[in-house]
Amino acid sequence: MRSVSVIGVGMSKFGERWDASFRQLVAEAGIMALKDSKIDGSAIQAVFGGCMASGRFLGQEHIGALIVDQLGLNPIASTRLEAACASGSVAFRSGIMAVASGMYDMVAVGGVEKMTEVSVEDAATALGGAGDQEWELFQGATFPALYALMARRHMKEYGTTEEQMALCAVKNHENGSKNPYAQYQNKITLETAMNSAVIASPLKLFDCSPISDGAAVAILCETSKAKKICEQPIEIIASAQASDTLALAQRKSLTELNATKVAAKQAFEQAKLKPKDIQTAEVHDCFTIAEIMAVEDLGFFEKGKAGKAIEAGETKLNSAISVNTSGGLKACGHPVGATGVKQIVEAVWQLRGQGGQRQANGVEHALTHNVGGSGATATVHIFKRA
Amino acid sequence: MRSVSVIGVGMSKFGERWDASFRQLVAEAGIMALKDSKIDGSAIQAVFGGCMASGRFLGQEHIGALIVDQLGLNPIASTRLEAACASGSVAFRSGIMAVASGMYDMVAVGGVEKMTEVSVEDAATALGGAGDQEWELFQGATFPALYALMARRHMKEYGTTEEQMALCAVKNHENGSKNPYAQYQNKITLETAMNSAVIASPLKLFDCSPISDGAAVAILCETSKAKKICEQPIEIIASAQASDTLALAQRKSLTELNATKVAAKQAFEQAKLKPKDIQTAEVHDCFTIAEIMAVEDLGFFEKGKAGKAIEAGETKLNSAISVNTSGGLKACGHPVGATGVKQIVEAVWQLRGQGGQRQANGVEHALTHNVGGSGATATVHIFKRA
Repeated sequence: MRSVSVIGVGMSKFGERWDASFRQLVAEAGIMALKDSKIDGSAIQAVFGGCMASGRFLGQEHIGALIVDQLGLNPIASTRLEAACASGSVAFRSGIMAVASGMYDMVAVGGVEKMTEVSVEDAATALGGAGDQEWELFQGATFPALYALMARRHMKEYGTTEEQMALCAVKNHENGSKNPYAQYQNKITLETAMNSAVIASPLKLFDCSPISDGAAVAILCETSKAKKICEQPIEIIASAQASDTLALAQRKSLTELNATKVAAKQAFEQAKLKPKDIQTAEVHDCFTIAEIMAVEDLGFFEKGKAGKAIEAGETKLNSAISVNTSGGLKACGHPVGATGVKQIVEAVWQLRGQGGQRQANGVEHALTHNVGGSGATATVHIFKRA
Repeated sequence: MRSVSVIGVGMSKFGERWDASFRQLVAEAGIMALKDSKIDGSAIQAVFGGCMASGRFLGQEHIGALIVDQLGLNPIASTRLEAACASGSVAFRSGIMAVASGMYDMVAVGGVEKMTEVSVEDAATALGGAGDQEWELFQGATFPALYALMARRHMKEYGTTEEQMALCAVKNHENGSKNPYAQYQNKITLETAMNSAVIASPLKLFDCSPISDGAAVAILCETSKAKKICEQPIEIIASAQASDTLALAQRKSLTELNATKVAAKQAFEQAKLKPKDIQTAEVHDCFTIAEIMAVEDLGFFEKGKAGKAIEAGETKLNSAISVNTSGGLKACGHPVGATGVKQIVEAVWQLRGQGGQRQANGVEHALTHNVGGSGATATVHIFKRA
């Protein structure tokens, strides 16, 4: 299999982007990635775009064609991929396979979502389509409810506390305050998080990632070619994906995501690394309990021990492992289709030493972890400097 | 690039499948493909599923995870791809890249759509998302209207007649009458087609493909391995995809699909073949005018000459080229996400000599052509016996 590297990245500012249409978000991130890679758009041979629910949010499907049309890249091939909130990273995986196969030498991968054109109620219903429509959403179980069930069980089994969950949000807002692309660049206190409105007990407002607009783009190139045209390519040394039941009720456990565990095992084997070799990780914190489960399932902490580790500050910037330096989904924002690619943008910046005030020290290996729905899809990628 | 072959295919009966849910359609086609390939499901390493608008039709996204869940294939990777009515064939391309890259040796590709759970009006609106939502659908231009514009222009420029278009439908119903999986297995007369209700002048009811439910599955394997485990693998000797503007108004021409022309050129180059080397072609006849443009843009007939060729019977079974032996989208049905894979199922059956009453003679090379929207995406595949 040919090695594949990232040669350029870009992202729009995440947030409630009343100033920018879906198309404009694509252009904002795409042009930044092209400039960053120092290549001309005509060098791109194919595009893979992650987007979860543009049909529900905008009445627009056929997003692949829209992206190349908007970026003036016709007539190259362009395809949309969807795996709920993991849409961005599955698009990234398709880009890897396209280059690794030899079908193309250079491709662009984008992730995009424009979620604020519909009411919050309609957005929650659209997002509910990431779970089991027949067995969950139709019965009224929206995503905060599903993750609240996981949180309650994690508290019961392992003694995880609401304060520990809230501390994830405090840490992620601290990181987000240093990220100019983040939706929320304000720090919060533990009190603010703990006193916020209950959404689905035990989850409160500050345990939940927001509804966001945004886009992110990465440009991929076969590694030997990348080394010739790019100052510092970032090599993809692992790309793994796994699945689990769509409905939470059918899982063996409520306190772990098996898809994360399977994908992490495959990824660490591919990279020939162990969790301790990773310095910075972007993990899928759609809810604070998701970050707690993620750092356990990825192997950074033993199952049931992450709450205490977070309390001890072990996931803060430049601690044992720097988790969600971008601010995570919580503070950087969560335009669902864009998130998986944004995580990769942050990994690339950290490996290049371009993390600004949130740069972690001595980053040799960066990991990204993206989840679809309540864990029916999970992807793990690991990167190093080529 | 590693060679990739199809080792098994399956499809559900297409039609108004009130008897089967989305999940059941997936199982019907998937189990048939597994039986046909004589492998155990555990040999499948990843799944790629094409589906256009399950979010609009069913409130269900995250179709990749749903498919492996339904087929009992967890925890393997599973991803949904979308390119409007070309969703099935772009999923097939992702399957090819996955195997060609060496990331996987054996994968399943599915296409599925369940369109009859919503009203016809809601279905038309959902399908409109394949075009430009802002510049076309919002203004009231549904798909029959867009293709009617193309038909009117083709009539003006080349003298194509309404009778010639109707004859496509007559021919496709003739083929469909011999296909036990087709939605419509009845022959029609020219008079029936010509006297049917006007949908968007000059297109009448029998110029339009129906709203359908259905699924189709193909199992892919690296060719050298395929030869060891399969009696007659069908090798994919070309896989091409191209894009065009999303909105019809931005095209240089209304009487050709440039994406089809670009993809066809690439595909014939990859296969080192010419149009005359193809014996049977499944082309994208979402409307009869689309079949006329397709056989021109693919190079089977000169631009502007297809109407007369169809009148002369040159696309009938065992004529110059057998076009849409399955019955095409018109008679076999058009569950949008499934169509691209169904075309491949038919190509495999024709190459194996399993076309039953609709078997074409001496099939050495079969071609499939799948279009998204009004031509913003087009794919072309060419197959031969491995």
